[in-house]
Amino acid sequence: MSTHTDQPSVTVLGLGPMGRALAGAFLDAGVRTTVWNRTPGRDAELTARGAASAASPEEAVAAAPLTVVCVVNYDASDAVLRQEAVAAALKGRTVVNLSADTPGRARDTAEWAGRHGVRYLDGAIMTPTPAIGTDDAVLLLSGPEELYREHRPVLAALGGSHTHLGEEIGRAAAYDIALLDVFWTAMAGYTHALAVARAEGVTATELAPFAQGIAAILPPLFTEFAADTDAGTYSGELNPITSAASTMAHVVHASEAHGIDASVMRVIEGQARRVIALGHGTDGFTRVAEVLARR
Amino acid sequence: MSTHTDQPSVTVLGLGPMGRALAGAFLDAGVRTTVWNRTPGRDAELTARGAASAASPEEAVAAAPLTVVCVVNYDASDAVLRQEAVAAALKGRTVVNLSADTPGRARDTAEWAGRHGVRYLDGAIMTPTPAIGTDDAVLLLSGPEELYREHRPVLAALGGSHTHLGEEIGRAAAYDIALLDVFWTAMAGYTHALAVARAEGVTATELAPFAQGIAAILPPLFTEFAADTDAGTYSGELNPITSAASTMAHVVHASEAHGIDASVMRVIEGQARRVIALGHGTDGFTRVAEVLARR
Repeated sequence: MSTHTDQPSVTVLGLGPMGRALAGAFLDAGVRTTVWNRTPGRDAELTARGAASAASPEEAVAAAPLTVVCVVNYDASDAVLRQEAVAAALKGRTVVNLSADTPGRARDTAEWAGRHGVRYLDGAIMTPTPAIGTDDAVLLLSGPEELYREHRPVLAALGGSHTHLGEEIGRAAAYDIALLDVFWTAMAGYTHALAVARAEGVTATELAPFAQGIAAILPPLFTEFAADTDAGTYSGELNPITSAASTMAHVVHASEAHGIDASVMRVIEGQARRVIALGHGTDGFTRVAEVLARR
Repeated sequence: MSTHTDQPSVTVLGLGPMGRALAGAFLDAGVRTTVWNRTPGRDAELTARGAASAASPEEAVAAAPLTVVCVVNYDASDAVLRQEAVAAALKGRTVVNLSADTPGRARDTAEWAGRHGVRYLDGAIMTPTPAIGTDDAVLLLSGPEELYREHRPVLAALGGSHTHLGEEIGRAAAYDIALLDVFWTAMAGYTHALAVARAEGVTATELAPFAQGIAAILPPLFTEFAADTDAGTYSGELNPITSAASTMAHVVHASEAHGIDASVMRVIEGQARRVIALGHGTDGFTRVAEVLARR
């Protein structure tokens, strides 16, 4: 491997679609990039573009002061990082774990890193693979501010906006989980709607512009709901949860009349009915946020 | 009641928040408006603005060639319309039912209307109350094209864009159900995310701008998903459903670790796991739309 010591360098562990996108963005930005993947053969395109291919994870992490990990989850990152030789090679170096998992796993990994003298940042990538290296990329990071500042110039190669959410190491994963919750639940709603529409003779392409209209009214409502939830007001003045529950029942009936599984909406309607039964029928749907977390 | 025969006129049955908004928009547009509500006392503000208040639904519908109904559901609209005196008074006149319910109920009401010589359009209002009478209002209508054309000038008072979805009377309700499915499922995801975020020390206000970022990536994905679904390709090239299921499991674990009900995501994850078990693990999440409807 060449050693231009003044050239920034990075190691990328994990060469799934996202890992390859990260390594590609580093290469495009002129960062010396070393790559490794558990299953060999994923690095051909990257080495053709100038990446160095390491034979082992310990060799990989020794090649740069900063290692970015992007594997399927923290079981997978643990399997790579928590080996004696890898931990030894990482001592005094920095790991940024961009794998997705829970805040608890991020905290556990930080604790492991602390015990082994490994400097640790946790992060989450909020945009799909094609956004990496472009202005559209959104990266969330948490952990020591100083460590974030030190590596920001190299991480900037990944493009877009990077937000340091604070020192609490689980913070990036907490945002990630909450946002993936919004994303996949919304996608499940849309997918179900496509099934119901099709049964009614409406194609997905016919429905799509209207579904986009619905998506467009979400951002201002998200802001309104946020204020309502933080204030604990759960206002139902314009749209009481009784009315929402009635609408949900229509969706369930229309769906099941076509033999289409409506279990997601059944659960949502059940939560609304529970809120009503608990005496909050004049509140808005936001009250669910409070009731879901009651002990 | 005054009878300027050259002035357009309309009757509004149902004076909940939406019915009042509809009547108010007609009044603002100079349409002679007669109102009636099952529970009296809801018309004070409207009569002060010039609306005529009818003593009974049959008196109300006799006052104009067009009656707009906006009550909680079709049980409620049936209870008003399917009375002998009301049906008799409606003979030869037009009813536009903007109440929300299933496509099956719309078809049933059209069948009743046909039997009683009542001209019938079905419709759905896709925007919240404050949008009525403004450019932002979105109204969907279905039923005889000629009838729609005849009443469009008066209905234009409600503002915004009106889309006639075709002659099939259930079409507006089908779109309505599908879009409400998207809306309330997305809202349930956001509300759940707020509960998880709060448990992690993240306020709704802190999360909101990022949740808006997620909402902003939905429209192009909706279009992509639509093409994928109509074509039956269910492409998982960039995001296979196995990866989605893994993410969903993280949301479930992070939520339940805080004692927060995660049953909506549990159901969604279960649907993804079922798709995988049926041999579609390399497909995208859209495959769920097909599997949900399998018989």
